[in-house]
Amino acid sequence: MPLGQRAGDKSESRYCGIETEFNDDMPQVLHQNISGGFDFVVAPLIDPSYRPSSAKNDGNGTLIPPFAASDLILSPSQWSSHVVGKISTWIDLDSENAELRRDSEDALKAEIAWASHLSLQACILPPPRATGCSNYARTVNQLLQNVNNMQLWIRLPLEQHEAVEDDAIDTNFKTSSGGRMFDSWEWWNTFRLLCEHHNQLCVTLDILSSLPSINSIGRWFGEPVRAAIIHTNAFLTNARGYPCLSKRHQYLIKSFFNHTIQIILSGNLVHDISQERILPAGDDNHFEGLPIRHALRPYLDYVAYLYQSMDPLPEQERFEVGYRDFLQSPLQPLMDNLEAQTYETFEKDTVKYTQYQRAICKALLDRIPDEKATTSTTVLMVVGAGRGPLVRASLQAAEETGRKLKVFAVEKNPNAVITLHSLVKLEGWENIVTIISSDMRCWNAPEKADILVSELLGSFGDNELSPECLDGAQRFLKPDGISIPSSYTSYLQPITTTKLYNDVKAHKDLAHFETAYVVKLHRVARLAPPLEVFTFTHPNCSASINNERYEKLLFEIPADTGSTLVHGFAGYFDSILYKDVHLGILPSKATPNMFSWFPIFFPLRKPIYVPAGSPVEVHMWRCCAATKVWYEWCVSSPSVSPVHNTNGRSYWVGL
Amino acid sequence: MPLGQRAGDKSESRYCGIETEFNDDMPQVLHQNISGGFDFVVAPLIDPSYRPSSAKNDGNGTLIPPFAASDLILSPSQWSSHVVGKISTWIDLDSENAELRRDSEDALKAEIAWASHLSLQACILPPPRATGCSNYARTVNQLLQNVNNMQLWIRLPLEQHEAVEDDAIDTNFKTSSGGRMFDSWEWWNTFRLLCEHHNQLCVTLDILSSLPSINSIGRWFGEPVRAAIIHTNAFLTNARGYPCLSKRHQYLIKSFFNHTIQIILSGNLVHDISQERILPAGDDNHFEGLPIRHALRPYLDYVAYLYQSMDPLPEQERFEVGYRDFLQSPLQPLMDNLEAQTYETFEKDTVKYTQYQRAICKALLDRIPDEKATTSTTVLMVVGAGRGPLVRASLQAAEETGRKLKVFAVEKNPNAVITLHSLVKLEGWENIVTIISSDMRCWNAPEKADILVSELLGSFGDNELSPECLDGAQRFLKPDGISIPSSYTSYLQPITTTKLYNDVKAHKDLAHFETAYVVKLHRVARLAPPLEVFTFTHPNCSASINNERYEKLLFEIPADTGSTLVHGFAGYFDSILYKDVHLGILPSKATPNMFSWFPIFFPLRKPIYVPAGSPVEVHMWRCCAATKVWYEWCVSSPSVSPVHNTNGRSYWVGL
Repeated sequence: MPLGQRAGDKSESRYCGIETEFNDDMPQVLHQNISGGFDFVVAPLIDPSYRPSSAKNDGNGTLIPPFAASDLILSPSQWSSHVVGKISTWIDLDSENAELRRDSEDALKAEIAWASHLSLQACILPPPRATGCSNYARTVNQLLQNVNNMQLWIRLPLEQHEAVEDDAIDTNFKTSSGGRMFDSWEWWNTFRLLCEHHNQLCVTLDILSSLPSINSIGRWFGEPVRAAIIHTNAFLTNARGYPCLSKRHQYLIKSFFNHTIQIILSGNLVHDISQERILPAGDDNHFEGLPIRHALRPYLDYVAYLYQSMDPLPEQERFEVGYRDFLQSPLQPLMDNLEAQTYETFEKDTVKYTQYQRAICKALLDRIPDEKATTSTTVLMVVGAGRGPLVRASLQAAEETGRKLKVFAVEKNPNAVITLHSLVKLEGWENIVTIISSDMRCWNAPEKADILVSELLGSFGDNELSPECLDGAQRFLKPDGISIPSSYTSYLQPITTTKLYNDVKAHKDLAHFETAYVVKLHRVARLAPPLEVFTFTHPNCSASINNERYEKLLFEIPADTGSTLVHGFAGYFDSILYKDVHLGILPSKATPNMFSWFPIFFPLRKPIYVPAGSPVEVHMWRCCAATKVWYEWCVSSPSVSPVHNTNGRSYWVGL
Repeated sequence: MPLGQRAGDKSESRYCGIETEFNDDMPQVLHQNISGGFDFVVAPLIDPSYRPSSAKNDGNGTLIPPFAASDLILSPSQWSSHVVGKISTWIDLDSENAELRRDSEDALKAEIAWASHLSLQACILPPPRATGCSNYARTVNQLLQNVNNMQLWIRLPLEQHEAVEDDAIDTNFKTSSGGRMFDSWEWWNTFRLLCEHHNQLCVTLDILSSLPSINSIGRWFGEPVRAAIIHTNAFLTNARGYPCLSKRHQYLIKSFFNHTIQIILSGNLVHDISQERILPAGDDNHFEGLPIRHALRPYLDYVAYLYQSMDPLPEQERFEVGYRDFLQSPLQPLMDNLEAQTYETFEKDTVKYTQYQRAICKALLDRIPDEKATTSTTVLMVVGAGRGPLVRASLQAAEETGRKLKVFAVEKNPNAVITLHSLVKLEGWENIVTIISSDMRCWNAPEKADILVSELLGSFGDNELSPECLDGAQRFLKPDGISIPSSYTSYLQPITTTKLYNDVKAHKDLAHFETAYVVKLHRVARLAPPLEVFTFTHPNCSASINNERYEKLLFEIPADTGSTLVHGFAGYFDSILYKDVHLGILPSKATPNMFSWFPIFFPLRKPIYVPAGSPVEVHMWRCCAATKVWYEWCVSSPSVSPVHNTNGRSYWVGL
């Protein structure tokens, strides 16, 4: 039974699981927990008291391991929808004891084979030992090549305390109290590097009562975390004796919901709740108001309450859900003509055109004082007019300010020009608007413009060649004329994103690793504040215009983040349309409710490991040749990557 | 004129060059230096006083840069055989000054284009600045994609002193005197990683009067060092006032000769040698005894003297010269039948069979006391008898010790069996030797053996499946019987080897990076002493035999080496044939003059950077399945590699 309804959310976070003990009567286990309100169980597949031993093996192959009965006790769909397998926790593939290592390998292989035979969706692997995990990872990596669709979720503590019972902990760093703690992310990172980022290798996190820093937790949102196991003793007790969670835990659980991470409850009932208790009335206690049957029902109800109390997804988010972490190639509007559907989508972005209109208003008022409003006519050219939205915004600005306008609408796409003509006729703009079917870079303008308006920006600002187009168009701008936009700046930020990295890798070629993508970033950890990359200003008054650029960026990752893996860089832009009117997608000052641009993503061919406290030095080039413009990029610290996209061999924008 | 003759050496180290100033009369430069005894010149291609400036460019493209005259002043073969281009040293692609960066890029591109037009074999690039080299490397990387066959040699100081004149040195480490020095290898490593190990990017080293440690220098022998530039002020003065070099410098120069690194002389005459000096007689002064014409002739003569004073290549080295750094796939003697040519080669390795004979002698004497010599017959089985060399060694051992022998020669290759029959007939061994045409793993022996002799070892010991074969054969060994060999151990060692890495990479697939190769290692830096990996002992008395193995190795690289790059691992074996008679290729105790085995090489898919002082942790597995045996390997520290050759997907040995 899902946790509840949340408008716009169709993700799997609605389902909640429970960790159970071994019991070979699986139908009973399932019935009890499903009827208790849970959606799935995490159950051991084999009696934990059973320890196979190769040394004692009689070699005739007749041993039958005590698995939970036969595959027939549940239907195939019950196995696959309601059971996550839990691999025996005694296994230790990195023991000093070679016999234990060998027995562990045999047991792991047998259990995974059984789970695979049952078509389980996933198995949870016990945590690696702190002393090392190479042999464990090697064995899992072998298994991953043959498990079909089943995922393997390696279980890790979100934070481990200094008072660890585990023997021989080789600790990673000291706590403030002088004890020692390790960073479980480091284990995960070693494990997945050994397994070469296999996309069926995932994570499940154990949540206890204490939590690490927000930045440290944030790293996990770029990793393939499938579930969070919350222990009943992580819960506090409210005034009525019922379980509840700390503010920080609540925030964490809601972040999990938002990142499609399922919750699994684990542990015993540790809150003394009388089953006969009279149910209190009152809206603020609705999570307590359900009939209590399953021992952990109060915890489940609280989790459901958290889920239900979340705000519905905002409309823009709901529209964008389908695009989450979906890689798209950037447009090539200069080489290719856009399709009607594309114009249609972008024209709906009213926020954007409102900003343009505000900018044009201000420019008109600056240019024509009130006393000349009726006598002076401003020549405004829309370069890249498309199907006319900026022409409309310009005329509305003229009306709003009471200024007289003469508009040239320049458009190179002949298909858009047809629509433009029809629009002008329909609106009766024939006396004001002249339509020019030409590329702005070669049009011979009959007169010079006061204002040049364009919308040629890409997700990374200059990546759709706005600089080259506007440099070509500024010939017909008066010496004191205004360009809207007047400038734009690109920004870059290092991110962890296992999902996008694996999607790029799936193409199995170099070219996809050297291409920038437009993508709605979702399962991503943003590791450092974005830094400015390239700025272009229009009109460009340099004696010799050069649109090549080179910037060296030094990202400082907050010290409490811990070590991280950088899979690539998220790119954004911010543009000054005119004076204080700006437009952009830089997260810290993004124009609200604008949907024309998703961020851009520059991948790295091999992710870069960044030890805690190390800055990340990145180099970004914008290169220009006669027929194309492209980016090259590399990392030089903490380790050195190759230069990506040399000579634009994989990705370029045609002039 | 080559430096001289050295028996067996056909390498390019015989040729010596000289660095010259800019002079646009190139024929004169060439004539003067070639007639002065040098083989090639390193000459600037453009007047160093010329500084192009894009900012001052009038844009009409009529500028003619003052290159050294036209391409017609020398013949194409003169340009390509006798001139190495020297790129302008003023260029600084990582300057803070954007205009200087841009002018440097234009100049570099123009000079490389000119050198490429002249079909020069190589150009020397000036050293990068200590503050960074990313933009320099990015530009060189772009050029490398299009320079056809020309090599680019980046020039680096072998050691830079603390008293550097260069402005703004961002130094790497402190000297004992409290000053600061940097490790030029780090620059090289950053540069080549950015350029992705391009195989036309090479190194030339400047040799001054002081030298770093042997270990630090040793790293360069695994790198593509093409030339060493020795400055005249690195020379000392001998009793007669002539130039000579310190012992350490002499050793270094000879190491360069041995690694096919050419010498280039540079600088002014700094020894006061009167041109009119009367030539002294006497054999010990023969390097002073040549007519002195060219100003640097005394230095050249000294270098030639060093070359000529080297020992001729030993016979075994001469035989192996053609195999240097040539990757071969290991044999699959179990799956494939060897060819006659292969038997022929291995049978010539008399040292090996002498060792076997010694071992068999000792075993016979241990087994049969003198008093039973005439009454007892020892049953000896040669398993894998091939064309009979071990049968011969056994019979010679019997003769030497006066013991009576009954020999079974078991061989699975029917082609070899034919030769074996003819040998037995020819030698008249019919009464002693029984030939069995069968695989030892399935032969039903008519009686049990006292001694089992085999030569099934590969370069890595067990890699040709000796364990599996002998486990199968020990059925017919008496309980107290002897196996020769009685045990063998494999060894591994991390190495730098740009050459082999690039050869593997050239295949552009995963499989070649996950294959072990047999190779005569030459341009290689051995970074740490070899460590033991797997040991197998025969006969194997375990209740259940398991030939799977797992070892974790921790290599300590000597502290004075500095940072290094590990491209993979060299593997060796040592085998105990019987008691104190051993056989092997482990460098520290290799059997002399034995040529049957080259080392094995396990590559890494991506080289691992090892900071100075960091140990290297390596994991090695021997995995067994029903039909094959394979290795998996990985590095877990200082950084984590993927596990190589998962499930033997790329490389395995068939059973």
